Amino acid sequence: MKLNIAVLPGDGIGPEVIAQAVKVLKAIAMEYNHVFTFQHALVGASAIEKTNNPLPEETIDICEKADAILFGAIGNAAFDLDPYAKIRPEQGLLRLRKSLGLYTNIRPVIAYDDLLNKSSLKKKQIANTNILIYRELTGGIYFGEKKLSEDGNTASDICEYTRFEVERIAHLAFKAAQSRKRKLTLVDKANALESSRLWRRVVQELAPQYPNVHLNFMYIDNAAMELIMNPRQFDVILTENMFGDILSEEASVIVGSIGLLASASLGDKHAMFEPIHGAYSKIANKGIANPIAAILAAAMLLDHFGLDDEAALVREGVDKSLKLHITTPDLNTKYDNITTTKVGDFIEDFINNPDETNLN
Amino acid sequence: MKLNIAVLPGDGIGPEVIAQAVKVLKAIAMEYNHVFTFQHALVGASAIEKTNNPLPEETIDICEKADAILFGAIGNAAFDLDPYAKIRPEQGLLRLRKSLGLYTNIRPVIAYDDLLNKSSLKKKQIANTNILIYRELTGGIYFGEKKLSEDGNTASDICEYTRFEVERIAHLAFKAAQSRKRKLTLVDKANALESSRLWRRVVQELAPQYPNVHLNFMYIDNAAMELIMNPRQFDVILTENMFGDILSEEASVIVGSIGLLASASLGDKHAMFEPIHGAYSKIANKGIANPIAAILAAAMLLDHFGLDDEAALVREGVDKSLKLHITTPDLNTKYDNITTTKVGDFIEDFINNPDETNLN
Ligand SMILES: CC(C)[C@H](C(=O)O)[C@@H](O)C(=O)O
Ligand SMILES: CC(C)[C@H](C(=O)O)[C@@H](O)C(=O)O
Repeated sequence: MKLNIAVLPGDGIGPEVIAQAVKVLKAIAMEYNHVFTFQHALVGASAIEKTNNPLPEETIDICEKADAILFGAIGNAAFDLDPYAKIRPEQGLLRLRKSLGLYTNIRPVIAYDDLLNKSSLKKKQIANTNILIYRELTGGIYFGEKKLSEDGNTASDICEYTRFEVERIAHLAFKAAQSRKRKLTLVDKANALESSRLWRRVVQELAPQYPNVHLNFMYIDNAAMELIMNPRQFDVILTENMFGDILSEEASVIVGSIGLLASASLGDKHAMFEPIHGAYSKIANKGIANPIAAILAAAMLLDHFGLDDEAALVREGVDKSLKLHITTPDLNTKYDNITTTKVGDFIEDFINNPDETNLN
Repeated sequence: MKLNIAVLPGDGIGPEVIAQAVKVLKAIAMEYNHVFTFQHALVGASAIEKTNNPLPEETIDICEKADAILFGAIGNAAFDLDPYAKIRPEQGLLRLRKSLGLYTNIRPVIAYDDLLNKSSLKKKQIANTNILIYRELTGGIYFGEKKLSEDGNTASDICEYTRFEVERIAHLAFKAAQSRKRKLTLVDKANALESSRLWRRVVQELAPQYPNVHLNFMYIDNAAMELIMNPRQFDVILTENMFGDILSEEASVIVGSIGLLASASLGDKHAMFEPIHGAYSKIANKGIANPIAAILAAAMLLDHFGLDDEAALVREGVDKSLKLHITTPDLNTKYDNITTTKVGDFIEDFINNPDETNLN
């Protein structure tokens, strides 16, 4: 298969972890005789630095022409501390999602047996957790009209949703539930928000089309508690943009490190794959960033094109690295000096030689 | 001291748990020669049932004249499943907060030594956690303009904040931090929301007035993770209405049961005290609802009037009930048949006779 992949490393640890994901994709291409080409482009704070634009035209162009996009992370501490900045790194990501129409963000949360003891949660609480979060990604409060009064003393954001926006992702979430444990939980705040009541109505109306899916509803405050108290009750979670942001980052505690969670952002024409973690500028360039989330994002990219064996091989490599403790310090307790690159190298070697790879 | 207390039991388990809190306050009044009078009023689904109004005029009137309000819980399953209802139980609570100007909601999250093993989190993760959440309660997306298009296909909510609204609660949170571990964390989503950037700006501007308080910032998604990964890093958390709702319910996993968390809602003229849990209609009238949160809400009421010894005695009673496992099934593993009333009775007996109370 020929794939033209746009690579947007972004800021902070983005470039380091994306380099490992690219390395892994190259190994897969070699092993399976695919032709993957990679085109790098700027986004975020590093794009602002060079072009004064968090999402240069050229980047949009490269992404639009690509078959898929591999995205790193954006943001940095200077911008975090400057709530006055008009041009912001995050705009790069948000505008990209919007302009490519990536309305469905899928975030798998799977407890690894080998990592159960890394979690802040008790083992028996999390074993066998397997949740798929469907987060709406191009609507809601991130994208509604924003206002700041002239005197700077009043600020507002609008959270708006249309039936159309809810329906298209809800169908996908119902279908995903059908192919899994047939349980769908809509998370909203229908007791306080009009937009949430629209979500609840639309999802209730679609339910009869999926009679074998058990549908239930949960308020976001309650869901934030239940996700930790009893994560195994969830199969597919469907929710709006900001609630999905909150729940999926919270869910990383189940897995043990946010450095392990990847996501796919899908639209009708484009597909982007990224780790869910941020840019963590503080630990950038130290060789300690966990590349697994980025590598699993690459596996989701392979899934997307039906390259099942290839994706499975990448995941086996990840599993093996975890089992052998070839992991960065956020997870590692056994060896020192396992760098970001070393984890990538290990998984690359595994792909080249699945039966022989060991720590060396 | 003479106190006229408005009692709004509300729906579901509200009446059962509030009955125990009133019992405890009566015991305190007896023991310390206070004159507490209690005036009951309707709110929520039970008010809708009787008056078709979730917050009858009479209720507002009683609350306005009272020195303090003790509130149970509102909502029920029928309304939760009906996103079409125009009159809703929650309006009772939201309008009450707004009309009494209760803009500061304070939610303490304290890990009880005797309950460390009840939490989903590992003991070593949570021991000594002591967080005070300052949640803004009368602004933000709950109260901004709501719209539903005529065809019912587009719905929106506005999240608006003014400098004034942020300043008044921020000062209180800074002061609380000064009297504690001198750490204040503002939780917002300043990388995506204009209203959050206003919060960040205003809080940054106030900071020089509190030079001994260490101020830091966290995005809500990240905070939802950090609260579980490393709860001890927090001292006082300050945040807007909806983020506070989410974080404080999530924080209940640290304490082991949401049945243990109480809150105070304060304005310039009025003060209301309530458990943070909801109405849980499912378990209503079974005698299994945990009354501790309601009883701790009563203790916060006593705090509010400077009745420190009285509040301390109530808390000692709660501690003793936990130590002796006189607890409802959500916590209890030792005895069967410890009902809601039995827990209240035990704490009442303890107040009457602190040195002699034991399970009988
Ligand atoms: C950077 C930020 C705007 C973004 C979001 O909230 O969507 C990030 O947290 C994410 O989840 O991808
Ligand atoms: C009932 C609901 C509207 C309310 C809220 O979200 O404020 C509740 O969850 C709470 O926290 O008191």
